[in-house]
This record gives sequence, C-alpha cells and structure tokens, in this order.
Amino acid sequence: MTVLGLGPMGHALASAFLRARHPVTVWNRTPGKAGDLLDRGAVAAGSVRDAVQDGHVIIACLIDYDAVRAVLEQAPADWGNRRLINLTSGEPAQARRMARWASSRRIDYLDGAILTPTSAVGTPAAAVLFSGARHVYEAVEETMAAVGGTAVHLGDDPGRAAAYEVALLDIFVTSVNGIVHAFALASAEGIEPERFAAFATGIGGLLPEMITRFAEQIRTGRYPGDRSTIASAASGITHIINAATSHGIDTGMLTAAKSVLDHAVAEGYGPQSLARLTTVLNKTGRP
Amino acid sequence: MTVLGLGPMGHALASAFLRARHPVTVWNRTPGKAGDLLDRGAVAAGSVRDAVQDGHVIIACLIDYDAVRAVLEQAPADWGNRRLINLTSGEPAQARRMARWASSRRIDYLDGAILTPTSAVGTPAAAVLFSGARHVYEAVEETMAAVGGTAVHLGDDPGRAAAYEVALLDIFVTSVNGIVHAFALASAEGIEPERFAAFATGIGGLLPEMITRFAEQIRTGRYPGDRSTIASAASGITHIINAATSHGIDTGMLTAAKSVLDHAVAEGYGPQSLARLTTVLNKTGRP
Repeated sequence: MTVLGLGPMGHALASAFLRARHPVTVWNRTPGKAGDLLDRGAVAAGSVRDAVQDGHVIIACLIDYDAVRAVLEQAPADWGNRRLINLTSGEPAQARRMARWASSRRIDYLDGAILTPTSAVGTPAAAVLFSGARHVYEAVEETMAAVGGTAVHLGDDPGRAAAYEVALLDIFVTSVNGIVHAFALASAEGIEPERFAAFATGIGGLLPEMITRFAEQIRTGRYPGDRSTIASAASGITHIINAATSHGIDTGMLTAAKSVLDHAVAEGYGPQSLARLTTVLNKTGRP
Repeated sequence: MTVLGLGPMGHALASAFLRARHPVTVWNRTPGKAGDLLDRGAVAAGSVRDAVQDGHVIIACLIDYDAVRAVLEQAPADWGNRRLINLTSGEPAQARRMARWASSRRIDYLDGAILTPTSAVGTPAAAVLFSGARHVYEAVEETMAAVGGTAVHLGDDPGRAAAYEVALLDIFVTSVNGIVHAFALASAEGIEPERFAAFATGIGGLLPEMITRFAEQIRTGRYPGDRSTIASAASGITHIINAATSHGIDTGMLTAAKSVLDHAVAEGYGPQSLARLTTVLNKTGRP
C-alpha cells in the first residue's frame, strides 16, 4: 500500500491503513510530512519511483489532477500488476482523461471521491465513491475497507465518482456561503449568532426532505408549487438583497440567483416549484 | 379577528382562526377569494373600512409593505383599541417604518414573520416570530395561539422579526438554488435524480451541525480550519465551475461565491474556517 501525497486527507488515509495493519509506504513532494506515521510503521519513500515500486495498490491523493499526472510521470513505465486509485478531488473530464492515460500505460485504474472530512476517514462515518472498471474495484475492495464506512462502486465510467463529488460539493459550498451570508446579515441587525443559529438549524434541517421531493419532481417532470414557488422566492430574494445592501454586505450570489429566478418567472414558471429551475439553468448558462 | 389579504398564507391564517372558533372577517383586494372560508363561518367584508371595523385584532398578510400601507390608508383614522399585526414578508427597515406609521395613528402594532409553509399553519409545526411592544404581544398572544406551534416574541424593536425572516430566507433561498444547480449538474452527467438525492440528503444533513459550530466561531472570533477551510472551498468551487461550464450550466452564483473566497484567501484567511467569511462579506459588499 502506497500513499502519494500527505496533505490532510492523504495523511488520514495512510493512518487508516496503518490502523488496519497494512504495510504502508508514503511519499510527499515536500519531505518531512510523514510525522507520526513513521513511528507507527510507515516507510517514507525517497522518490516516486521507490514509492510506486513498494506497493501493490498505489493511492494518489494530491492537490489536483495535474499534480497526479506530473508525479506519476516520475514512476516506472511498467506498473506490473500494480493498481492506481486516484482519490484526488477534481472534475469528471479530468478523471476520464486520467483513466485514458492509465489505460495507455496498461495500469488498472480506479477513480474515487471521499465525501467525508478527514476526521471521518478510518471510521464507520466515512463515505467513499469509486468509479472505473468493476474488476479493479473488486480487486481492491477489501484493502480499501480500511478507509471505513460506506464504499460504493458507481460503475465503469471513471468520471462518475468525480461527477457526484462536484455536484455534492455544489450543494455544500453554495449552502455554506448562504449560511455565512445570513450570519453576516443577522449580525448587522444586532442578532447574536447563537440566538440566530437556534432558528437557522431548523431551516437547514428542511433541506434533506426537500432534496428528496425535488428528485421526484425532476424525474417526473412535474413541478407543483404547493410548498414554495419560484415567484415567492424571487420576491423574497429582493428583500434579502435590499437588507444586505442597506448594511453594505456583498450581494453577488443573491443577485446571480435572482437573475435565474427572474428568468424563470419571465418563462412563465413563477407558480411552479423551485425544482423547475433545473431546466432554466441550462439556458441562463449559455451565452 | 380580521384577516386582510387572502393569498395562500392569509387563507391559511383565516382557516386556522376559524378552526379555533374565532369569529373571522376576511377582505381581499380581488373579491371571490374567500371560497370555503365563508361556508365555515367567515364574513367577507366589502371594504377595508368594514373589515377593520369588524375586528379587534387586524391581521395584514399582503404581498408587501407598500400594499399594507395602501390598504390601511382606506381604514378609518380612529382604530379605537384595535391592534394591528402585520405578518407580511418584508425588510427590517420596512417593518420599522410601518411601526412608526402605526404609532402616528396611535395604533398598537406588532410585526411578525411566519417561518413555516402554509400547510403548517394551524398545526404544532408552525413557527411565528413577533417583534414590537411587549404589551401588544401579551394582549394578542392567546388569540395568536390559533396559528399553532411555536410563537416567539423577539423584543421591542419592530424590525427584529423581519431581520430574522430575511436572514433565514437567505439560507433557504441560497441553499435551494445550490440544490437545483447540483441536480442540473448531476443530470448533465447522466446521474438519475433519485440516485443523486440519496447522497445529497447526507450533505444537506451536515448543515445544522455546521450552523451551530459557526455560531460559536463567530461569537468567539476564532475560526479554526480543522474541518474545512476557505482555501479548499476556493479550490473545490473551481472544479464545480469548470464542470458546470462544460455543460453550459449557469455559473453566476458560483462565480460570485468564488470571488468572495478568493478575496478571503488574498486577505490570508485561506487556512481558516468558512465562518471567517462573515467578516469578509462586509468588505466585498462595499463599492
């Protein structure tokens, strides 16, 4: 087992493999990052070549796909029956390109996405998605069980795990930016953060049910406006923008969201569910 | 009990008051909206003057504050000891202006915000915030219990309920726009909506805990980056933008969010928690 890259996630992975009593070799571009891993039995390789030579399963967890490619170009050309599992965050197209590169080198390749924070790695709370050839997944499934929690193989398309990852990150990043914006607005109105949080957690708690409902609406193509409508969101967002503006708080995201909502209203979707926006974003995004 | 405005929320309120056996008079700018309320004992007033005359507690639930003002200008100047409860959605500044108007007419005024969908009104799931003079809240508390669920008086500042409302709506609207964007992206990648939702609900479920954590960070002014950092969000959002762009999906909100994240990184906040953005949004929002 080799781990290339000892950022927070690479470090957590190496640690989980050690805990599961796998022999672990680690490599990092900047040396000296292995820290406690060495005391716990990990071997620090001096070069990518040595690191790859040392393992049967090579895990890459680097800053981006370009870094993966640059690092692997330093490995021996002949991988024998070593397998490459790339857990680096990136885009579906990058994962597919990486798979083509691996294929050209006759390297068995699996792409993966870790959905949980580093603290969950090696525990039952971890969740990892894999995509790529099923036989590769089956060959490493037992080894990768050390990461803990839920592992799901999403099929042969190597880009699929990254597709889930970017779409899930989309929800996370957008929501978090909305949450901090709301705290900024509440604070400007003199509301104490913890007082506000008591109500805000309730709003956050509505989302899982809504996600399930939206999925059904999108599948069936029926967007009933019985809960909340595009028109009321368009009107509500104007109040938020005005309140934020009055306090000198950034309104970039809200203005962008309003422009999509206004477009939907102009298309006649005002009385429909917000799930209808999925069909509008494809239009407003084109030049 | 008079309800001015029979949009979905006004209708739900009137219905809840009837269920609690209050005498109910309703008025709507466009007549004929009372429907089943009349069969259940409500009286439809022919004018605002008659509607206000008929009730001791006058509830306004109209499209916006301008509409409330315009409608109430048609009421008699002398309200006697009638009380005005304005449940119309709006901005804190509008609520404060409305309270000043009411005060100039010697009308006891309470502003309120309904946090739950119409379907929850009259049930234990309803949540309503009130702000304005405590003696007015105490005088109507029992009557307003018909709305059901949780009622909270937030203090004397009549703008406070609207401040909570816009900030909570901020989280809701931003998150929902992120969710539909993620569905659009997943769908462009060939992922079935219900398959995606199974994972997405998990991401949505992380938010309440994060809101609580952020509140503490904002209160203490300490933003440890042990869970997720501004730098990693800035890098992740680039992947989402690239993936969305490759499918011709709108990137307005993401680009706006990225610009705030980039600004925070430039300020040296990259290794800190995303809660630190609350102090950045006040800068990026100013011209």
